[in-house]
Parts: sequence; structure tokens; C-alpha cells
Amino acid sequence: MAEYNVIGTSLAKVDAPERVTGKATYGADLDLPGMLWAKLVRSPHAHARIKQIDTSRAKALPGVKAVITAHDLPSLPKGATAPLVGEVSIDMSAIREIVMASDKARYHGQVVAAVAATDPFIAEEAAGLVDVDYEPLPVVEDVLQAMQPDAPLVHEDLHTLEEATQEKSDQPSNIATHMVYARGDVEAGFAAADAVVEKTYTTQMVHQGYLEPQACAARVEPNGRVTLWTSAQGHFTIRTQLVTLLGLPASQLKVVPMEIGGGFGGKALALFEPTAIVLAQKTSRPVKLVVSREEVLRATGPGAPAVITVKAGATQAGKITALTTTMRYDAGAFPGSPVARGLLVGLAPYKLDNMLAEGFDVLTNKPRVQAYRAPGGTPAAFAVEALMDALAAEIDVDPLAFRQKNAAEEGDTLPLGMPLNRIGLTQMLKQIETHPCWTSPLEGPQRGRGLALGYWIGGSFTSSAEVKINPDATASIFVGTVDLTGTRTTISQMVADELQLDPQDITITVGDTDSAPFADLSGGSRITYTMSAAAHQASQDVLTQLKERAAEKLKVSIAEVEYQAKRFWAKNDTRNEVSLAELARESVAWGSGPIIGKGSTTRMQPAHAYAAHVADVEVDPDTGKVTILRYTCFQDVGKAINPTQVEGQIQGGAVQGIGWALNEEYIFDNGELKNASLLDYRCPVALDLPMIETVLTEVPASEGPYGLRGVGEVPIVPPGAALANAIYRATGARLYELPMNPERIFWATRGNGANGSHETNGSGGA
Amino acid sequence: MAEYNVIGTSLAKVDAPERVTGKATYGADLDLPGMLWAKLVRSPHAHARIKQIDTSRAKALPGVKAVITAHDLPSLPKGATAPLVGEVSIDMSAIREIVMASDKARYHGQVVAAVAATDPFIAEEAAGLVDVDYEPLPVVEDVLQAMQPDAPLVHEDLHTLEEATQEKSDQPSNIATHMVYARGDVEAGFAAADAVVEKTYTTQMVHQGYLEPQACAARVEPNGRVTLWTSAQGHFTIRTQLVTLLGLPASQLKVVPMEIGGGFGGKALALFEPTAIVLAQKTSRPVKLVVSREEVLRATGPGAPAVITVKAGATQAGKITALTTTMRYDAGAFPGSPVARGLLVGLAPYKLDNMLAEGFDVLTNKPRVQAYRAPGGTPAAFAVEALMDALAAEIDVDPLAFRQKNAAEEGDTLPLGMPLNRIGLTQMLKQIETHPCWTSPLEGPQRGRGLALGYWIGGSFTSSAEVKINPDATASIFVGTVDLTGTRTTISQMVADELQLDPQDITITVGDTDSAPFADLSGGSRITYTMSAAAHQASQDVLTQLKERAAEKLKVSIAEVEYQAKRFWAKNDTRNEVSLAELARESVAWGSGPIIGKGSTTRMQPAHAYAAHVADVEVDPDTGKVTILRYTCFQDVGKAINPTQVEGQIQGGAVQGIGWALNEEYIFDNGELKNASLLDYRCPVALDLPMIETVLTEVPASEGPYGLRGVGEVPIVPPGAALANAIYRATGARLYELPMNPERIFWATRGNGANGSHETNGSGGA
Repeated sequence: MAEYNVIGTSLAKVDAPERVTGKATYGADLDLPGMLWAKLVRSPHAHARIKQIDTSRAKALPGVKAVITAHDLPSLPKGATAPLVGEVSIDMSAIREIVMASDKARYHGQVVAAVAATDPFIAEEAAGLVDVDYEPLPVVEDVLQAMQPDAPLVHEDLHTLEEATQEKSDQPSNIATHMVYARGDVEAGFAAADAVVEKTYTTQMVHQGYLEPQACAARVEPNGRVTLWTSAQGHFTIRTQLVTLLGLPASQLKVVPMEIGGGFGGKALALFEPTAIVLAQKTSRPVKLVVSREEVLRATGPGAPAVITVKAGATQAGKITALTTTMRYDAGAFPGSPVARGLLVGLAPYKLDNMLAEGFDVLTNKPRVQAYRAPGGTPAAFAVEALMDALAAEIDVDPLAFRQKNAAEEGDTLPLGMPLNRIGLTQMLKQIETHPCWTSPLEGPQRGRGLALGYWIGGSFTSSAEVKINPDATASIFVGTVDLTGTRTTISQMVADELQLDPQDITITVGDTDSAPFADLSGGSRITYTMSAAAHQASQDVLTQLKERAAEKLKVSIAEVEYQAKRFWAKNDTRNEVSLAELARESVAWGSGPIIGKGSTTRMQPAHAYAAHVADVEVDPDTGKVTILRYTCFQDVGKAINPTQVEGQIQGGAVQGIGWALNEEYIFDNGELKNASLLDYRCPVALDLPMIETVLTEVPASEGPYGLRGVGEVPIVPPGAALANAIYRATGARLYELPMNPERIFWATRGNGANGSHETNGSGGA
Repeated sequence: MAEYNVIGTSLAKVDAPERVTGKATYGADLDLPGMLWAKLVRSPHAHARIKQIDTSRAKALPGVKAVITAHDLPSLPKGATAPLVGEVSIDMSAIREIVMASDKARYHGQVVAAVAATDPFIAEEAAGLVDVDYEPLPVVEDVLQAMQPDAPLVHEDLHTLEEATQEKSDQPSNIATHMVYARGDVEAGFAAADAVVEKTYTTQMVHQGYLEPQACAARVEPNGRVTLWTSAQGHFTIRTQLVTLLGLPASQLKVVPMEIGGGFGGKALALFEPTAIVLAQKTSRPVKLVVSREEVLRATGPGAPAVITVKAGATQAGKITALTTTMRYDAGAFPGSPVARGLLVGLAPYKLDNMLAEGFDVLTNKPRVQAYRAPGGTPAAFAVEALMDALAAEIDVDPLAFRQKNAAEEGDTLPLGMPLNRIGLTQMLKQIETHPCWTSPLEGPQRGRGLALGYWIGGSFTSSAEVKINPDATASIFVGTVDLTGTRTTISQMVADELQLDPQDITITVGDTDSAPFADLSGGSRITYTMSAAAHQASQDVLTQLKERAAEKLKVSIAEVEYQAKRFWAKNDTRNEVSLAELARESVAWGSGPIIGKGSTTRMQPAHAYAAHVADVEVDPDTGKVTILRYTCFQDVGKAINPTQVEGQIQGGAVQGIGWALNEEYIFDNGELKNASLLDYRCPVALDLPMIETVLTEVPASEGPYGLRGVGEVPIVPPGAALANAIYRATGARLYELPMNPERIFWATRGNGANGSHETNGSGGA
């Protein structure tokens, strides 16, 4: 591979100074002259018909400028969709209902009205004066209950779509979609097994826990155009949704990206922006909408819970002969759980000749889920990797050796049908073999070591970059991708090496929808990967343009022009040279015209990312509390553009997975969230964690100029099972439900069924 | 020519709603958190050595955060220049002195220090507490005096550059440059003449009179990068100057263009921005600098005055046989008057076989001039067109017929050497012949009709445009050119016709230096002209990309794809079609990638613009006051993209020329401006003016997709002579000095020498 000066170094984040000094401008920092404040009115029922909304008391409050309900949103053609990424479309009628419920409230905290007032306190008071007449309906909260024929219906008119046949069932149902992926002969496979284990695993609804609550502001310009400022994961995506939802042409709507305080998948949908815009249109004043932490937890879009059954068989030699799984993902009140991704992530690490994978997208009276880092992956891997641990134990094969015997390789076909290009799973597993985190003895009582794998397909879709050479031979990069994870820095590093410039001489700007080149949303571990191609292409475009100009000056052909260290010269006469500085200056003085390179990529192959986590835990036998003694993340990153950032991503993802595994859960009572604060919803803090060690494998991805793979998603995938397997080694008890908090462990180690086990749990030989 | 739907229509300005509702954001509208206010300390002497500056009293005032002098600006290498447009460079050491004087104050009001304080009142008070010890020096105010060998020297070390030989004289001088352009045999030409007239004409310093005083604000970002907001004519140009002046790499400086309330050439230089930036760097707080109207008039960059001698001879048949001219332009305190442009503009309307044109760029203790609409043109045309009127009268030839006999044509060579491409002067003059403004009798005493020609070369240089297709088949245009004259509207019109879209479906954004494609400054009648090529090219690029995608879908070759009315179809099978909407949607959904067209132009040929103004006046014999009865502007505009805007430009330019002709002048006393307010410096108001009629000739320019010519400059050129010639017809008195205010006319009509006549004035036959 090529030698780089900047790629592969841990350049400090270009946005670090403004972030750490508090100068970075987030959505909530906006202060527009004449601005009004919006406040949302939310349903106190998890399921209720809205009989009437009386806004007269609210409207009469001095300082209130507008009160709107769903009737004030433009009506939407039935079946209207907007592209999300690639071929994935969003049902905009569902988004409209989440923005503001029309006929029914389908989850506790669903928005039913909104007010705009001259200050936030008046707005809050006015929200309390909106009188809504509800007819409460029975609530369905549990995914398994929701699948029963006699369950209360979240939508009376929803019929299960059989994905294979594209046919809808006759009976209304809470099952939005049913999908089946099959391969080989499962019965024969199980018959050939020496051991078969089947278990059911349950995970709870969790939240992405981004630091910044949603915030946006809208202003209607004098010509009717709308300017929207928002802290979202993709301002182009938000625009696309608003074009459909509000019937505004894209030419009449500018979306300006603000700095974003975390998204993790939860800020991809236009759930608040339409309200700000409609209130701004009604009042002819700018309107700002900032939600509270309680609102964030109650009614944004948390991560999906699931109930997953896995059955697998293996020979005594450790070879998997068959696997079946049923994954039931809870979408909340509108379809769209990440069940297909769950099936993919759970099974992707393995060669599976005989397989039957079934998925259900199920509705309940809970907030509609959104993506959460490797969406669908964590519950699936918890189930599959815990089951694999149990199966390996059953046949007395070392858990690492068991994975190595069955590890997927290049050319294998993924569960959903796609062939694997180059992957580094085998190499990564080999690294574990000799690593002290795996080989060092773990002494002491109540201690155990667990291993689990993870996978993420790596997003692709559209990314674009422009690279401009300034007249003083510095460069400006212009992109339309929101920076969630340090991508401004990594893109700058790539361009710096391509153009052989100092990173200090490069600036990078994230532009609004009117000016920046289009990009899909930031998420799915896709930005650094796809931007590597777009930035490379734009840089090469720049170099080509420069070489053309150099060739003209040097009076040689373009092929004879060499470039290095800001100088172009003729291959055959190194003294015949021209500097980048000169070409740059001439580009704007009377002469050669601006140098603007363009790069865009839309359909890169996936850069599959595999990870393995090794956890050492100690369990307090009296309280059930888990202490993590050591935690090591192995990951094939393809190529670490910025090792510190890569490690930071891995550490952050692992910590979120650990939170999900040990502590975090939504606790509902008849659909009402009982722990809607960060005191009661417990994310891990530094004191809960050891140093998260990282070991990077660099097997280049099949596509892209540097071989890198997106790294952000996969580290959240393995922690549930890695910790469950470690807790089993420490205590002898297997846990089947997340989070594995002290209470569940306490009872599990005492053989109590409170450990979330379902009747299908049990193991048996062939 | 092609048929257009939008080009040629008077589309309302796209920025009109925000401008008329007061929502447009100008430099002075900025309000940054924690912002300080800057105030400038100015010299009370027109010429004085700065012996010492004591800032201690100012610094001690509570609320003052910084006081700076020239020593706080980065030092500058001797001879440092920055490109302005094309091959024109700016001497940055002069700019540095104008920003803040180091050794001498060379004009009254020159900045010597600046303060930043927590509010503007404290800043103003502190400015008064800066103690400067001056040694006053003799002042030179008049351009002819300044050219004398014994005149006080504005710069002790300046030596006249002989442009022809590039040699500098031995003696220091106030003449910065001396230029001579010669052709044919002048002596033989005069010998062949039946009449020769020689006169000297004088014009005064005037101001552009833009509505908005200069305003800018600077913020140093936590990473040291600087963001600068400014209402200037070119944010890229400002950046280029600041890169040199402050030693900031372009990558560390973002210049954000604000709406601009007029420039007319006077807002092209970074005269205030460096102070705001240095104060922001010193204080680590944002700093805003807004100057007052008085400061604008006293010490920004007014239009240059001149003393111009013209001698011309003609045959009885009306053919010019020879012309000589000496043009002495007053640059103010630093070199850079538009004398070369004056020579060009004055002589460009005529075929001149025998010619000697001499120019002087002369320094005085007055503010350094800047460009003012057709810079240099108005004084030159006043002189040449008044002289031509006198010469025609001398041989008794009708003034229009005289111009027609000598009018320049395509293929002729301009005075400075360039050949003329296609021009419409002859056609335009033909239109006057039969126009009522020329043919209708003008009855009554003290009334007269005058005719004068005008010319402007039409700017070229670099312009770039990006056109993007949004996913809903609307379009976004992105440019880096500040909109002074409605260019956002005209560019939108061009793109609308090229893409066959409704203008409502198009938005246009002027972007900052980090994101927008590079463009030279807005001025010189260059934007609509050069942008026509850039926008056309970008639109064609878009259409090519769309046709490629359509061809793929229709399974035909690109050549077989037709486009009209948002549909692409196969030439041979019109039912085989795909809509723009579909291609647009696919461009962002999983698929074909964003559609971004690029256009850039750097070296277009000049689109020469000629004008003729016909003025009818009545002169009050008791007061000398001129009433304009009728005023008609003929102009070859090539193609009027937006007729109302073109007419508005012509009317505005004519009115500025009328103000210069009849009222406006800087009145100095020992270098101090005595009329530094808009009450005492009298711009024309609506009551002073008749309706300005316009007659558009459309002879397409040699280059560019629509044949248009820039229209903004030339209408300011003819009014001085048109009115002088009309006053002569009304009163029998010729005036040789602008402004032709009542006092001058009063005395001129009484044969008094107060009419600014110089000894060279007088006429005689060959």
C-alpha cells in the first residue's frame, strides 16, 4: 500500500477547539430576532382516540401567537413516501402522525398539538391549556402479546405483509411485515448435529442517549421561502422528507445543518421540523423548538427491543450443521423496526449451509423506534452469540476455536443473500488466540471471561465532496455530510495526503442544502468509507486540472508531469518546473480559472466490518452486580485513517453496548415510561468502566482508495453476549434477558425464572 | 436567435421581498454574542508626520478592550501586491497605510488608530482619548499644482514611472505614472483639418453615494480561524487582500458576504476589514466596525477628479483628422487613478487615424480614489464629447451627423490598441435620427438640446456557477458573486430557460469563500455578461448529465435523447420517455448520484457597450439653475435579459452622471472636506429629475450565449457633456468645469472666467 503522511496519524479533531470551548453552534444556540418559542402538547395515554381538541383557552393566553393541531399540517396523499437512504423509503403518513397525531394517540407522549408563544414559559403554560378529549383504548406493550390474534390493534387497518410473496393478510394485525430467509436443509442439518441448543432471548427498549436534545428553528423569508436550522443527521434527508410532508418545493426550503450533539441513528427523521415550520408560517415569525430530556426519552425514537429465538446444532468436531432463528422486533407504534438488519448482523459471522431465518416487524403502543447504532444488531448478536457460547460449551469446544471453525470467509453468502467480498474475520480471530486478554489466566472466584462476535454491513449510498484550491495554494473542502464522528477531520486527512498539503492548509465546511453537494444522511458507518472515495476522486480531479495547467506551462504532455511537495515538473527535465503556488495564484488572477475538483459516489460495495469483544467480569454474589475487570475490542477496520478517532469510536460503541447489556432499559407501565430521566434511566459512567482496550486489524476493504471500513456501528454489537458469556463463566448461570442488572443476575444465580426465560428455553442433544 | 420564455422578461427581483421588508441582512445588521464595537481615530491634518501616538488614556477608559495603531498590523514585505482583477494588482503597502497610517497622514481623515470597546459610545469616547502628536506639512490639493516640480511631495520616495519604457525618473514626484498612446501622424492630421478646437476641462472629486456605509464584523474561532462578515463587492477579492495584508492563509479565513447597499466600485478594497480582524484577534471577542456617513464621505474612496485637455481637428465635411489629449487624473494620496480607463472611454467612440493620448496618474493630499461606475469615464467623456460638440459647431455639422461620420466600427482599433469586435454604435446612432427626443422641436427661450456619447469596455475576468438538480426536480444555483444589480435574478432567468424550468422552481445562493466557486469582484459591468457563459455552461453540464442518465434508461444513445418541458424522450420513439422528476428522484435515492453542473469562465472577450444621451434643458437666466426637460438614454445592451432591470441600471447610471454634471462636488479647504454630509454634498433627488427614458439597441455581443452586454457602467459616462452641450444650446455659453451648478452657469452666461476655464481654452481654425 501507498505511504501516507497524514492518513494513519491521530490528527486532532479540526472541530475540537470550538467544541471544547463551547463556541460550536448547536440548534439550541440559535437566537433569531423576533423569535417565538414552541412547545408540544403530548398525549397522557399510550392508546386513545382523539375525540376533540379545544385550543381556545391556549389561544387566549397573552403572548400565544399560534396553536396548531394535525389539521394544520398539509394533507398528505395516501401512500406518500420519501427516500431515506438508497432504496429505503419512509412512509410519510406515519411521520405525519408522529409529528402530530390526527385520529389516535398510539403511544404515551405522542404529540397532539403545538403552541408558539413569545417566551418558553408562556408556551409551556399554553400547552397545558390545550384541552384534548381522549377516549382511552386498551394498550398493547409486549411484542409477544402484540403478535397474538386477540391483541388490541395499534392500527385497525394494518395487514401483515408477507415479504416473500408481497401479499397482505386478510386479517388486521400488529405484525407489519413477516420475512423468511432459507438456505439448505435445516432438518437434515439438525439430524447431523451431535448437539442442538435452542434458547429465547429478550432485550428491552433503550435510548441512544445523545447529549443534545432535538432542536430546530424555522423562519419564513419575505418571499415565502423557508429557512430551517436543525441538528439532524442529514439535512438533505430532512429536506427530502419536508418536501413530501409539507408540499414545499426543495427550491423553497433551505435546511442549514447545525453542530450536532450525537445522533446514533436517532436524528434522521423530520419529527420536529414540520411543527417549527408550520408555526413559523402561521405567525410570520421565526419559531424555535427545543425539546426537554424527558421528551427525548419519552417520545423521540428509541432503539428497538426484541424477542429472539435461536436454535443451532453442531457436530462434536465443532462444525455448525444447522441454524434457525425467529426474531421479533418491536417497532413501537408505526412499522419500521430493524428486524432485517438483526437477522443479517446475528448470522453474518458464520458459514451457514442450512439456515432458516424468520423475522417479524411488530407494532406496540410504544414510541416508534428509530435506528440506534448498528440498528437491530445488538439484540440479535446477544441472542446468537450467547447461543453459540452455549452450543460450544455443550460440545466442549473452546468458544474462540468454535468461531474459528465456523467463521465466514470471502466468497461465502450472507444470510440475506449477498456474497461476502474481502473480510478480515479470520485474521482478527487469529489475533485473539495469542492476545493476553485471551491467554492470560483469570484467577479468583466469581470471575469469568466471555467472547462474542459482532458484524455490521457498512453503509454505502451517496456522498459527494468538492475540493477547491485557494489562490494561496491552500485548499477548501466542501461537503454536505453532517459530522457526527470526526469526519471533517478524516476527510481533511485524506485530501491532505492526496494533494500533499499540510492539514493546517486545508479547511472543511459542511454546507446547507442550497449550496453543498448532495449527500445522504450521516449514519450506518458510511461517511468515512464513502467519503474516502468521493474525497479521493475530488482530489484526483484537482490534480488532473493542475497537471493540465502545468503541462501547458512546461510545454510537455500531461503524462509527463510529475507532482510532489507542491511542485510540478517535467519527467525528463526536473528543472522545468512550476509551483503549486504559482498555478494557484494564476487560477484567480487573469488566467486559468478556478480549480474545483468534484467527487461523488453512490453505489460502493459494502465494507463488511467484523468485531470480537473479550470481557473479563467479576460478579458480586450478594448483590448480582457485575464489575468489568478488562474489556478488549478486536475489530477489522480495514485501514485506520485516524487511529485515535477509530479507537474512540470503538470505545464509545462498546460502552453503549455495555450500558444496554448491564443497565439501560425502558420501564413501562401500561405504555407509560416510568424512568424518563437520566437519573432513572441509567447510562454507564466512567466509574462503571475499565479502560476499553482496542486491537485493530487492517484487512483492506474490497473497494475504496485506502481500504478503510466504517468503524462506528459494530462495537455496539458484541457487548451483550460477551458479558453474558463472561457472567456464565463467573457464576454458572446463563442470562437470557438484557439488561443483566444486579436484580436479574441475583435471581438467575439462584435459579429463579425471573431471569426472563421463556418456555422455549432449554437445551438438548440431537 | 433562440426563443426564450424567461430571458427577456422583466421577472421581479428574487431578492425584492427581503429587501423591501427590511429583512435582508446587511453588514450593520450583524449582532454577535459578546461583540465589541470598533471606532477609528482619524487625522485632523491633510498632511502631517505622525511623531507619536499615546494610547494610554484611551486604554484606561473602562469598557475599552483594545487600542491599536499601525504597529499592530503585521509588517508587510516591500512591494507586496494582491491580484484585484485579472492582471490588475493592488499595492498592499498602500492599502496598509489607508487601513492605518504608519509614518504620515496623507489626507484629512486618514485612520491612525482604532479602538474596540463594549459599546459604540465608549468606543467613540476612547477614540477621542487617543493622543497623536502630529507635525503638519504643506498640503497639495490641486492636480495641476501637484504636477509642478516644487509641489509638496505626498510621498517623498515616489518616482514617476514612464509606462512606455518602464523606467522611473530620478527626481521624486507626485506623478505616479505617465502614459502615452500614439497612432498615425498628428501634425499632418491637424494640418489637414479645416478647423481645430482645443479646450481644457475640469471635474471635481465626487462620491459614489452608496446608501450603506461600510460595515464588517470579524470573529476569531477557537481554532484561530477567522470568520469575517462584510458588505463588499467581492468577498473573494477581500480574502485575497487579507491573505497578503495579514499573512493569514486563505484556509484560515472565511469571508461571508452580506447583502450590500450599493458599491459602484467603492467597496472593492479591504480598508476596514483588517482593523476588525486585528481587534478581534487582540481581544478574542467578535468586533464590529460600522462607519458613519461623514466618514464615508471624508475618507473612503471617492471618484477621481481630472483636468483634461483635448484638441481635435476636422475637415469641413465633418471627418476628424487628428486628436490629442492630455488627461491628468487625481489619485488622491496613493497611486491608482483610472486615467488609462479615462483615455479609453473618452476616445473609444471614434475612428482616430492620427492620435496622441497622454495620461498622468497624480497624487494629492486627498483620500485615495476608488473606482466609481465606469471609472475614469465620466470626466473623459465630458471633455471629449463637449470638445466634439464645439468642433462640430465650428464646421457647422449637426452633432449627431458628426458622430455618425466618425463612429467606430467592428474591426477598428481602440485607442489603447485592442481591436473592436461586434459593436452596435452605428445602429444606435441610426435610432436617434428618427427618435422624437431628437426630431421634435424644442421651443422656448433658454432651452437647448445636447447629445453626447459614452462607452464602457465591459468587464470580463473570472465567474463561476454551479447548478444542482434537487430530488424534486427543482434547481439550486450556487455562485460566489455578490449581487449588486439584480444578478441573482438574471442568472436565475438564464438557468430557467436553459433547463426549461419555472423561475419559481429555482433558487440561487451567494456563498462564502469556503464553499462557493471562486469569482472575481462584482463590478465593471461584468457579472451578468460573464455569468451568462458560466450559467449556460453549468446548465448544459446538467443537461448532459441528465441526458446520459436518460439514454441509459431509454436504451438509446445520448445523441438520440431529446429534452423539452421536463421530459426526455428517444428521438425515434416519443413514447419511450422519462421525466426530469424521475431522474431527479433517482439521483439521490439509491442510484445515479447527484446532478451538479459546473461552469466557469475567465477570459471572455470584452462586450463593448456604447451609449448616447440626449438631454433637453432649460436654464434660468437669473439664477443659472438647470431644469432637465427631457432625458433619453440610447444604449446597445446586446440583449436585455431583464428589460426592467436593464432600464433601471441605465436610469440609475444616468442620474448619478447628472448629479456629477450639475451638483455633486467635494469642496476642500487645505485638504479638509467642507461638505461632508448629504445635506451639503448634494445628490440629485427625484424632484430634480424628469423620467429618464431608455431606448435599447440589441446588437449581440461577439461572445456569450445570449449576446448580452454589461449595462451598468456606461450610462454614467455621457451626462456631463450631454448637459454641457444642451446648456450651450440654451445659453450660448460653453462650460468647462463640472459640476455645472447655478453659480458656474450664472457666471459663464455672463462671460466670466469663474467658469473654470484655463488659459489653453480658446478655439481657432487650422
